[in-house]
Formats: sequence, structure tokens, C-alpha cells
Amino acid sequence: MIRRLAVIGVGLIGGSLARALREAGAVEEVVGCGRGRENLEKAMALGVIDRYSHEVGEAVAGADMVFVGVPLGAVKGVFAAMRGRLAAGAVVTDGGSAKGSVVRDAEAVFGEVPPFFVPGHPIAGTERNGVEASFATLYRNRRVILTPLEGTDPEALARVRAMWEACGAEVAEMSVEHHDEVLAATSHLPHMLAFGLVDALARMKENDEIFRYAAGGFRDFTRIASSNPVMWRDICIANAGALSRMLSAFADEMKDLAESIARGDGDHLLEIFQRAKAARDRYIESLGEEE
Amino acid sequence: MIRRLAVIGVGLIGGSLARALREAGAVEEVVGCGRGRENLEKAMALGVIDRYSHEVGEAVAGADMVFVGVPLGAVKGVFAAMRGRLAAGAVVTDGGSAKGSVVRDAEAVFGEVPPFFVPGHPIAGTERNGVEASFATLYRNRRVILTPLEGTDPEALARVRAMWEACGAEVAEMSVEHHDEVLAATSHLPHMLAFGLVDALARMKENDEIFRYAAGGFRDFTRIASSNPVMWRDICIANAGALSRMLSAFADEMKDLAESIARGDGDHLLEIFQRAKAARDRYIESLGEEE
Repeated sequence: MIRRLAVIGVGLIGGSLARALREAGAVEEVVGCGRGRENLEKAMALGVIDRYSHEVGEAVAGADMVFVGVPLGAVKGVFAAMRGRLAAGAVVTDGGSAKGSVVRDAEAVFGEVPPFFVPGHPIAGTERNGVEASFATLYRNRRVILTPLEGTDPEALARVRAMWEACGAEVAEMSVEHHDEVLAATSHLPHMLAFGLVDALARMKENDEIFRYAAGGFRDFTRIASSNPVMWRDICIANAGALSRMLSAFADEMKDLAESIARGDGDHLLEIFQRAKAARDRYIESLGEEE
Repeated sequence: MIRRLAVIGVGLIGGSLARALREAGAVEEVVGCGRGRENLEKAMALGVIDRYSHEVGEAVAGADMVFVGVPLGAVKGVFAAMRGRLAAGAVVTDGGSAKGSVVRDAEAVFGEVPPFFVPGHPIAGTERNGVEASFATLYRNRRVILTPLEGTDPEALARVRAMWEACGAEVAEMSVEHHDEVLAATSHLPHMLAFGLVDALARMKENDEIFRYAAGGFRDFTRIASSNPVMWRDICIANAGALSRMLSAFADEMKDLAESIARGDGDHLLEIFQRAKAARDRYIESLGEEE
């Protein structure tokens, strides 16, 4: 049971965490923190938080669990603002989509990654933002990856794990580096392709006509291009190493594919498409849901 | 009113056309044609067709409208098989996703593109195949592009247009070349990216783990990678020129993006993402539907 949860950044991710813990009866009090008064008032009205402060230092005072749910570019500032203001025994975790940068931010602010900090990443979300978009079941049956370091306090790790399990999530642990590679492949790279494609089409002359003839598949394929641009800029910067490597390798593969198409190498194309279809069909099957 | 419609290839596209025309009361008799007995029997049982033949020449006999709904790689053979077997005054159209190759096939078989042939492309479809997947409303409010040539009989064009309008579709006309450019951008390129991404991930070691941590957006983004590989191989070969050029240009842009990420050029990234989000949001708005 969490006595007092401080949620720094009461958006989709932080708001859904608070809602889920409340619904599970796993938290007594939730203190919100953010810059925008309007969003925090909405969070109060929706019963997501009990009270709020615009000051991180004030919000974390007396909290036994602190969740940092701000864009990656803002994490360092939040760490700096909570330094020296945390209660004894407080545990801090976060929800950032890249973990290397968060660990570097913690080192920069605290001198080393504090034992009470457990880097985390819930693999869940929608293209919508803000506390109105949050809901209690966002994490149900979703995976949460924790990336503890050598110096991480096992007790802190256990408490963060229990918190996510109370939300119905399945918790896994892996190294910071491995997390950032896996997420570059499954999330960051697809977002680059979707943003890049829509941008390329938008810059074509007659782009109105281009979009007019886009078929149904285009809508699904580009859905993630409606994601928050600032958040994604931050993710790119935070996971620059793994992401730029992977994007560059993928661009090389697309060059090869363009050449296969140009020379009419149907067998090679068929091989790629069949392997891809088989892998995607397996993936959908593994979800145990109908498409 | 169509007296006898011959549908060569009774799958999602041809089957849905027959169903829509029947529902509109715009056709008297539908003759199916295909290789697989099972699919054609299913089409009979579902009431999509009235009778069938495995021979194209037999199926088109006495038909006043012929729809060719086979994979692009099979179009030429179908044209060859109907040559000399069409009724006087019969109109032929098709549903191929690339038009240049279909026109070349018609030239090769008939010596020139016959006046009674109207190349067409309904911009509609799902990732499912076969007559069971067909439905009468597939074309409702969807666009159909017709690409008549200089020698196309205006009467034939008018009849094909009327056929699609009876299905509830909105019919547009453009040149063959322009069609193939537009479709390369909005459909063929996205499919290459989706197939390419899923294949790249499937070839990574620990690919099981990679897919395990894929989030919700991944599923939508890769849906089109579950499309029919043979059909897509044919489309690539048929639209090789426009598609390979566009894919190669896109790969160059992704290289640039990888470099921007590597050097941490946040302003440039933000500009791309904002432009893309704005364009996609406009696109969704233009559909007049909720996301």
C-alpha cells in the first residue's frame, strides 16, 4: 500500500497510474504536480488527484512513492527540483520511453543513480494526451519494463514492481541498454517511419490530392504520426544512439528493396513479404485477440 | 443496367462488386470465373454469382460487362483468354492497383488498347482475401479512379462510371501515369515500409522478445504487413518505376533523419513531427470521421 503518491506530470500516463492504484485500493493519497493549473484542476475534478502543487519540492514532501511522468526532456529538471526534498525511505520511479537518458539525468543531478530510483517504462499509451485521456485500465495486461541498476535497492525495486502489478500490469526486468534497443525497434523506429511518410507526402505538390486517394490502410499505418511532436522529439534525443543506428540500417534495407523492385526481382520480394506476413500473423496470434 | 456481368477473379474486390450491383438492382446475371472450384462454389452458395466457368472465354461469352479482378501478374493471361470471345458491344474494365502495367498488357495482347477497355482502380479493400471477405458496401463513399486513354470509347467509359456509381462510389478520372504516382505514394510505399519493418524485426535475434514488447501502435502500423504477399509482389513489379523511385527517395530522407537524431537536432525533428501531425490531423478531419 502506498500512503502518499506524488505524480509529477498528471497526463495520460501519470493520471492512469493514479486512477488504477485508486481503483485497486492501493494508494491512500495522490498529490499532483505540473505547470498548468487548468490540467491540475481537471485532475482534481476527475478525482485523479487529491491536491496539487506547482512545485516539485512541495509535491514530493512526505510522499513514499514518487512517479515522474513528464516528457523526457523535462526529467532532469524534475530530478533537480526534488533533490533534498524527498522523504526518508521514499522510492522514485518514472515512465520514460527511453531509459539511458533518464539514468544519465539521475547521475548528473544526484552524482550517481540513487538506490531509491527505479527506472521504469510502462508499454502502454494512446495517441491522446492529458489527464482527460487517462483511464484506470490502461495498464491492465500490459507490460511494464523496469531497468534496475547494480546499486538499486531491492526493496525499492520490489515496491515499484508491486505498484505496477496492482495496476494489472505484467512486470519484466532488463538492462537499460537492452530496453533502449528493443524500444528503438518496436516503437521509436515505427514512429519515425510514420512521421517521415506523412511529412514526405505533405511536402509533395498536389498533396491535397495525394491524401484524397489514400485508402483505409493508410489511416491505420499513419495513426502514430498524430502523436505528440514534443514528446517524440524528446524520445529521439534521449534514445539517439540506438534509434539513429536502427533507422540508418532500415534506410539501407529500403534502398535494397527499391533496387529489387527496379530490377523486377519478384522472388526476393515475395520472400520478404511472406516472411513479414508470417511474423505479423504470429504476433497477432500471440496477442490472443481477433484482428 | 448490366444484363450479364462476368467477374474474372471472384475475390474480395470482384465479389464485393457483384454484391453491390445486386443490392442496387443494377445487374441481372453474374457469371464468375476462377481456377479454384471451392471458392466459386462458395460464391454460388453466398449468392454472389449465379453460375461459373473455369474458362475465361466461356465466362465472358454474352456478357455486356466484364470485370477483371485478378492479381496484376495474371491480367495478361486473362486478356489473352478473352480475346476473340467477347460479345459485340461488351465493355471490359479491371480493378488493378497499378494501371501502367495493365495498359501495357492490353497493348501486348490486343495490339493496341481496345476502345472497349476502361482501366480502373477502386481505392478500397481490407487485408482479407477471398469471396467470404466480400461485402456489398465495400465501395460505398470510396473513390474509384478510372484512367481512360485517348482511344477509349466515351460510351464504355460512361458505362463503367455508372457501374461504380451504382455501388455508391465516387468516380474520378486521371491519367495512367498520375494514378501510378499517387498510388505509389499513398499505398505502395506504406506497404513496403510495413512489410520491411516487420521483416527486419523478425530477422533480429531475440525476435520473440522484440514482438513481445511491441505496443498498441505497432499493431495498427503493421496491419498492412498482413496483406497478401503474392498480390504485393505483383503490384511492385507492375508499378516498379514510380515505386522504386519513391522508396529510394524516402530511404534518403530516413538517412537524413537518422543524422539529425544522431547530432541531436531537436528543432529540425520537431519541425518534421509537427508538420506530419498537422497533415495527418487534417487528413482525418477531411474524412469527417472520428479517429
